[in-house]
Amino acid sequence: MEPRPAAPGPCPGDSRGAEEAAAASSLNPAGAEAQPRRRAPAVAAVLPAGGSGERMGVPTPKQFCPILERPLISYTLQALERVCWIKDIVVAVTGENMEAMKRIIQKYQHQRISLVEAGVTRHRSIFNGLKALAEDQPDSKLSKPEVVIIHDAVRPFVEEDVLLKVVTAAKEHGCSDYDLEFGTECLQLALKYGHINAKLVEGSPDLWKVTYKRDLYAAESIIKERISQHICIVMDTKEDENHVGHYLEEILKNELNHVKVTSGALCPARDLEQIILEQCYNYVCVNVMSSDFEETRKLLNMLEESNLSILYPIVVISVYFLDYKSVPFDEKMESLIQIREYAKEVKKRNILLSGLLIYFPQDEQKLQASLRQGVTIIATLIKERNSGLVGQLLVA
Amino acid sequence: MEPRPAAPGPCPGDSRGAEEAAAASSLNPAGAEAQPRRRAPAVAAVLPAGGSGERMGVPTPKQFCPILERPLISYTLQALERVCWIKDIVVAVTGENMEAMKRIIQKYQHQRISLVEAGVTRHRSIFNGLKALAEDQPDSKLSKPEVVIIHDAVRPFVEEDVLLKVVTAAKEHGCSDYDLEFGTECLQLALKYGHINAKLVEGSPDLWKVTYKRDLYAAESIIKERISQHICIVMDTKEDENHVGHYLEEILKNELNHVKVTSGALCPARDLEQIILEQCYNYVCVNVMSSDFEETRKLLNMLEESNLSILYPIVVISVYFLDYKSVPFDEKMESLIQIREYAKEVKKRNILLSGLLIYFPQDEQKLQASLRQGVTIIATLIKERNSGLVGQLLVA
Repeated sequence: MEPRPAAPGPCPGDSRGAEEAAAASSLNPAGAEAQPRRRAPAVAAVLPAGGSGERMGVPTPKQFCPILERPLISYTLQALERVCWIKDIVVAVTGENMEAMKRIIQKYQHQRISLVEAGVTRHRSIFNGLKALAEDQPDSKLSKPEVVIIHDAVRPFVEEDVLLKVVTAAKEHGCSDYDLEFGTECLQLALKYGHINAKLVEGSPDLWKVTYKRDLYAAESIIKERISQHICIVMDTKEDENHVGHYLEEILKNELNHVKVTSGALCPARDLEQIILEQCYNYVCVNVMSSDFEETRKLLNMLEESNLSILYPIVVISVYFLDYKSVPFDEKMESLIQIREYAKEVKKRNILLSGLLIYFPQDEQKLQASLRQGVTIIATLIKERNSGLVGQLLVA
Repeated sequence: MEPRPAAPGPCPGDSRGAEEAAAASSLNPAGAEAQPRRRAPAVAAVLPAGGSGERMGVPTPKQFCPILERPLISYTLQALERVCWIKDIVVAVTGENMEAMKRIIQKYQHQRISLVEAGVTRHRSIFNGLKALAEDQPDSKLSKPEVVIIHDAVRPFVEEDVLLKVVTAAKEHGCSDYDLEFGTECLQLALKYGHINAKLVEGSPDLWKVTYKRDLYAAESIIKERISQHICIVMDTKEDENHVGHYLEEILKNELNHVKVTSGALCPARDLEQIILEQCYNYVCVNVMSSDFEETRKLLNMLEESNLSILYPIVVISVYFLDYKSVPFDEKMESLIQIREYAKEVKKRNILLSGLLIYFPQDEQKLQASLRQGVTIIATLIKERNSGLVGQLLVA
C-alpha cells in the first residue's frame, strides 16, 4: 500500500515558509549563541486535546467528533502537518483517549506526531507537552525546539501564514510559549504575571474554534465546499471533439463556474495521475463509446492505488447516455444495475460511486435540458457527499 | 388558497406567554397609570435590517442570504411572529431593499409587519423604527407599545423565553429601548451616557448572530435538523398488521431513534390532517397494495392544499416493493418512471418528491438488509433535503 499523497501545501517544492521562518530565527533576541543562517529554525507544536466537550451537548469530546466520518482533531493535525517547518507535533490527550488517538494517527497516516498524557487543566496539558520537547528527557526522540506553537486541537482551519506570524513574533519578542495562543486568555495571563513579554498576533476568521454543535455543522460544510472545488472529467474517447461528452463538459463548466473542471484520459493516464496527485476528490467518468464499466473500473483502481481517499471521501459518477427510442430502457438499466455491487465494494475504501443515465434525444433543446439536469445531479452528489446514495443509478 | 399553518408556538392554545408578560406589565415602575390586570401588555419589536453584510464575503446583505431558498430575515420574522404577545414588528430596511422586503413578506405570508426606511447607522434605523411606533404618527396603524424589543435581523433562532426575560427586565428596570440588545455594545452605551438604567439579560447559545459565511452553513444545518425530527408514514393498508410496510416502519423507528415517527392514513384522513397541522415536513408514502401513484397523489393534494410548504420544503418519498423474481424489473420501473413528471409539478410548490423501490426477497435476512438500506436512503433524502434529486427512483 502506498502512503497517502501529502496534503496540499508548499512543503516539497516551495521552501518559502522555511526561509521566512529562518529569517525570523536570526532576529531571535533570546538566542544564546549565533545561529548559522542556513540552519532551519526548530519549531514544534503542542496541541492540548484533553477537553471533555461539555458545551457541545454531545457525549464525545469535541476534538473527536466526526466530520465526514473523520475525527475533528485529524483535520487539525493535517493543517499543522502540511507546514513542513513544524518539526514535531505533540498532542496531549487523556489516558482514556490515548488508544483512540493512536488509532487515529495510524488510520489517517499522520506524521511527526508524539503523544503525551493530558493534565487536569489545559495549562498542565501544555506543560506536559513542553516537557516532552525539553532536551533532558533521556528516551525522547524529539529535538528541542527554539519556538513552540501552542494550538487548540479544535481549530482545524489554521493557515500557514498565521503560524508563521506567530513564530516571527515569538522570535522578535522573545516571549514564552503560552502567549502563542490566538485568544486573549493566555495573553492576559502573560501580562498579569509580567515576567515575560507578550504580543497578541492578529489571527483571521479562519482560526475560529469549534465550540458548539453548530460549529461542527459549519466545519463540515466548509470542508465539503473545499474538496468540491475541482472536478475531473474522464472521457472514454478523444477522437471526436463534437460529441455529447464535450457538451456535458461545457455545461458543467458554465453552470459550476466557480469550480475548476479538468479533463483526464485513462490512456495514456499521465494527466490523470497528475490530477490525483493534485488531490482532486471528484471524478465524472463519461462513457460515450461503451455501456459497460471497464473505464470506471480502471479509474477506481487508480484511485484505490493512490490512497487519496484516506483523508476525504472521493465522489465518482459514472455517466451513460441513452436514446429512449433506439435502445430499450430496461436493457440498458439491467446492465447498469451492476453498479450497486461495485459501489458496495469501493465504499469500503471511502469512494462514493453512483451512476447517472442521461437521456439523449435527437431534439437539440431537449438534449440541452437533460444535460443540464445531469449537471444538477452531478453537482448535488458532489456537494452533499453523502454515502447514503452510493450505488444508485440516477436518471436525467 | 388557504393561509399557511401558523408556525409552531404556544400562541393559539396556550396563553402562558401572554400571561407572564402581563404579570411583568403589572410590575412596571415606569407605568404612568395603573393598568387593568386583564389587559395584555403592548409589546412591539424593531428589527434593524439595513446592514450591507461586508464580513460575509458575499454580495448579498446577510439578512437576505437564502437558507433552503428562503431569505434569512424571513426565519427571524417567523421566530418573532409566533410569539403572539408581540403585537407589531417593525423592520427597517434600506430604500433599495424595500421592494424585495415587501415581496418576502407577501411570499412567506408574514403577519403584523410594518416597514420603515433604515438610517445610515444601526442606531438611526432603530430610531426610525421607534418613531413609527410612537403615537404621534397620524397615518400609522401601529399601536403605541409599552415595551419595544430591539432584535437583530440576523439572529433567527431567538426563543420566546428569552424575549419574555427581556420584556420582564424592561418592566422591572424601566430602562430605555436600546439596552434590549443581546450584546454588550448597547449596554455599554447605556451605561456610558448614564441617564437610564440598563440590565444585561442572559441569553442562550441559540441567540447567536449570523455573521460569517460559516454561520449560514450552520444555520442551514440547524434548520434542516429541526424540520427532520418528525416523519409521517402513510400506509395504503391497515388490514394486515404483519406486512412489509410495518417492518419498514419498525426499522425506521429503530434506526432513527431520535426522530418521532407517526402513522397516518389517507382514508379516513383525520390523523393525517392533524399531522399536517402539527407541521410535519417529511412523508413516507408506503404502497403495499398497489404499484400506482393514487395514494401518493392524494397525499400530495392534501399537502398542496394545506400550504404547509410555504415556509419549508416538504420531503415526500413514495415507496414500492419489488420481488425481482416474480415481477419483471423493467415492467415495474417503466410504470414508476412517471414519478419524474409528478415531481417536476410539485417542485413548483416546494414539495420534494422521490420514489424508492425496495427489493422484497423471500429470504428473511435479505429482506431485513434491503429494508435497512431503504431506511438509509429515506434518512438521507430527509436530511439533505436537496432539490437536485427530486423525481429520482432510488433502489434499495
